[in-house]
Amino acid sequence: MINELVKKIKQLDAPIVVGLDPMLDYVPEQIKKAAFDEFGETLKGAGEAIWQYNKGIIDSTYDLIPAVKPQIAMYEQFGVEGLAAFNKTCEYAKSKGLVVIGDIKRGDIGSTSSAYAVGHAGQVQVGSKKYRGFDEDFLTVNPYLGSDGILPFIDVCREENKGLFILVKTSNPSSGEFQDQLVDGKPLYELVAEKVAMWGESHMGEDYSYIGAVVGATYPKMGEILRKIMPKNFILVPGYGAQGGKAEDLAPFFNEDGLGAIINSSRGIICAYKQDQYSKFGEENYADASRQAVLDMKEDLKKAFVK
Amino acid sequence: MINELVKKIKQLDAPIVVGLDPMLDYVPEQIKKAAFDEFGETLKGAGEAIWQYNKGIIDSTYDLIPAVKPQIAMYEQFGVEGLAAFNKTCEYAKSKGLVVIGDIKRGDIGSTSSAYAVGHAGQVQVGSKKYRGFDEDFLTVNPYLGSDGILPFIDVCREENKGLFILVKTSNPSSGEFQDQLVDGKPLYELVAEKVAMWGESHMGEDYSYIGAVVGATYPKMGEILRKIMPKNFILVPGYGAQGGKAEDLAPFFNEDGLGAIINSSRGIICAYKQDQYSKFGEENYADASRQAVLDMKEDLKKAFVK
Repeated sequence: MINELVKKIKQLDAPIVVGLDPMLDYVPEQIKKAAFDEFGETLKGAGEAIWQYNKGIIDSTYDLIPAVKPQIAMYEQFGVEGLAAFNKTCEYAKSKGLVVIGDIKRGDIGSTSSAYAVGHAGQVQVGSKKYRGFDEDFLTVNPYLGSDGILPFIDVCREENKGLFILVKTSNPSSGEFQDQLVDGKPLYELVAEKVAMWGESHMGEDYSYIGAVVGATYPKMGEILRKIMPKNFILVPGYGAQGGKAEDLAPFFNEDGLGAIINSSRGIICAYKQDQYSKFGEENYADASRQAVLDMKEDLKKAFVK
Repeated sequence: MINELVKKIKQLDAPIVVGLDPMLDYVPEQIKKAAFDEFGETLKGAGEAIWQYNKGIIDSTYDLIPAVKPQIAMYEQFGVEGLAAFNKTCEYAKSKGLVVIGDIKRGDIGSTSSAYAVGHAGQVQVGSKKYRGFDEDFLTVNPYLGSDGILPFIDVCREENKGLFILVKTSNPSSGEFQDQLVDGKPLYELVAEKVAMWGESHMGEDYSYIGAVVGATYPKMGEILRKIMPKNFILVPGYGAQGGKAEDLAPFFNEDGLGAIINSSRGIICAYKQDQYSKFGEENYADASRQAVLDMKEDLKKAFVK
């Protein structure tokens, strides 16, 4: 799957992942109305609304981008019905040829991480049959519990040709509280990065490992150091756009080969129609606004490669 | 809710939480057969089996224990149908007067943590209505992202009179890889504990804070130090029993008032019928075996209070 991701990034010349993080406030009125008319103002109605919203965005952008990243919390807030919409979104995105990065940030002790890995990337045994509960291509995971919280995910990913992005340095303002603490003169996120590089060796693709890292666009200087510690690990970079990360700051996240990073934009794409710049599209044509925002992001990202 | 938890622990003289972490292998044949007869060997059948299994354990133990702790990964592995069983389990446990600790170990950047908090402890707005997607009394959360990953959970808990247990020092063998790293001579888990104590001040109950910590029974020396750093914070202690933690080692987790800790046992209780000690009950009477295991655990825990 990492080989496929790299290939698609090259083909499309777009190291871009669209974050499908739908809030109900983002969903245009006509979609909400149709969903509520059919299912009422219920959790099922909310699930239907965010699924239809996602479908519109996927349909209008799938030929431009290699991957989408649904953030499961945005679905989980609507309970089981929201998670059914998450599942539908992942399935549909895959049917359109997109790589699906499940932004689930799970992580627990060994046996529990195994269950999460099976649930999101593998197959669960039920009597004589096997099923996929959820089915993403990549998962984000949290490293706080150390190796035995991570290795069960890698085991399942190896069997399934799937991959991970492990949190190293997150994009949020307070990420430094624990992640930047110095351990023998070195910040904790570097220790985590060294582990990611090591874990990654056990599940290599052609040029890059199936095991990647998450490093926020909001911390470009750290990105530069982390790029060197993890030369073979793809970096998933959130924080571009709405969170404040600029294209000019993204250069350090890429390798000399122009690869090695994939930049996420969520609100900036899926909620483009609410921005002044794209308001001409109107609420009804929100998906066209998203397409234009992807094209503009692609153009903007070229600044990352100007030497 | 923390006041209620403390009251129930005192009333029952049982600082015990039963971990409802069902693997399908644990579920007695008669329950699996009934579920598969009704729904087939499907995810729905698996969900039904684990729900019925849980119901049996709750029915046979609810008068002895203050709380249950369903581990969501064990449900999530069966996809949406598994999560429906999680929801049913939480609802039923509450209807029997039990406090429900949702072991979800979520944690993300601010807006995303908000969505998780709303989904598991609060109410989500759908048009003019409000719903609870999931509905636990306490949640476990992961601190790796720092304050802005935690505070949205605390905000929702304050509104809802609910609480948290924040991962400080986990019970697994490799928890030290990052958690034990020394920062200015002090292990990282102590820094996290200091934050938990601070965060806890903003949401106090009568004697204890609504904001607690997770510290593994497998690390009693660290438990002793952490107890002092967080005098007003309840400690949820996993790792007793199957993971190797002994009752004698639990003394440091409690305060002078005999309170301040709640000890989790999962397999040791829910899968008691598979142990030699309880095999006389037989598979059909698995719930009676679980009841006896709770009674024995209660007795065993007295060793923690022998000076």
